Amino acid sequence: MSNLGVFSNIVHLGADPALIAFINRPREAAPHTLRNIEIRGKYTINHIHPDFVEKAHQCSAKYADGVNEFHEVGLTPDYKNDFNIPYVAESRIQMGMELSEIIPLKNGTFLVVGNLVQAYVCEDALGNDGFINLAKTDSLVSLGLDAYYKVQPLQRFSYAKPEKTLEVLPF
Amino acid sequence: MSNLGVFSNIVHLGADPALIAFINRPREAAPHTLRNIEIRGKYTINHIHPDFVEKAHQCSAKYADGVNEFHEVGLTPDYKNDFNIPYVAESRIQMGMELSEIIPLKNGTFLVVGNLVQAYVCEDALGNDGFINLAKTDSLVSLGLDAYYKVQPLQRFSYAKPEKTLEVLPF
Repeated sequence: MSNLGVFSNIVHLGADPALIAFINRPREAAPHTLRNIEIRGKYTINHIHPDFVEKAHQCSAKYADGVNEFHEVGLTPDYKNDFNIPYVAESRIQMGMELSEIIPLKNGTFLVVGNLVQAYVCEDALGNDGFINLAKTDSLVSLGLDAYYKVQPLQRFSYAKPEKTLEVLPF
Repeated sequence: MSNLGVFSNIVHLGADPALIAFINRPREAAPHTLRNIEIRGKYTINHIHPDFVEKAHQCSAKYADGVNEFHEVGLTPDYKNDFNIPYVAESRIQMGMELSEIIPLKNGTFLVVGNLVQAYVCEDALGNDGFINLAKTDSLVSLGLDAYYKVQPLQRFSYAKPEKTLEVLPF
């Protein structure tokens, strides 16, 4: 059964191969996502935007086995490009992931590492240098247990080197 | 020798014990922080704010062994409460960490897990329920390789349960 969850602890592990990892809570607290990933070997990561933040937060509720969380919270599954795992149609940044490894950590949580194999980004957020301005997609960040924030671009800088003055880059 | 670096891939692993982890790049790319943590068993995590974002970004330059990066970039080491490892005095959220474990990952990066043993937060950012409003500390977030963003509170929600309407919480 398709499952949705809110994950705020997501890290970039490497660019080539493109690896992204996230922390899954202990299995007894959050079993569905982990089990689905183990069985299917694939999953999607979808950004949250203000127009569906309440539905997204509701995904963190512990629904019973066999409940379709897309249906419960009112989000739309989006199957495309033979991926066989649903994206969230309402999301403007969608990532298709293939499982690389699941590493159990001492405190019962898991580091789930995946290869980024598909990505969908709305074109007007994509800069000439490949930079994605996440203020243009209105992607939210989560800070603390239960809070969502909008982001506002402040500064981009050039690659830092000793004895070299930083240049400001365009957003 | 004291070392500074910019780390944007930081995750919350658990509340009790309070565990925070971060990704360190491969040892050949970023050796100083990892070596210091291995030797000392302690380190600090300090938020970045707009008034020193340029100095903070400059910390990502590969300075030679034996160079004091506080001095190079113009930030101030802040030793306090017998911790023996410097905080960044300019930062308004400072965390003192004790190493728990370093987990090497397949692609050459490391997951560095630490116990939060000291924390300093400016009082006006701290709510009655213990929530820390990171817009009030003007803490920055990093999205993408080289971009810093300010945050703007959008919404806090109550703990989600099936068949229960979410409540909005104050920031």
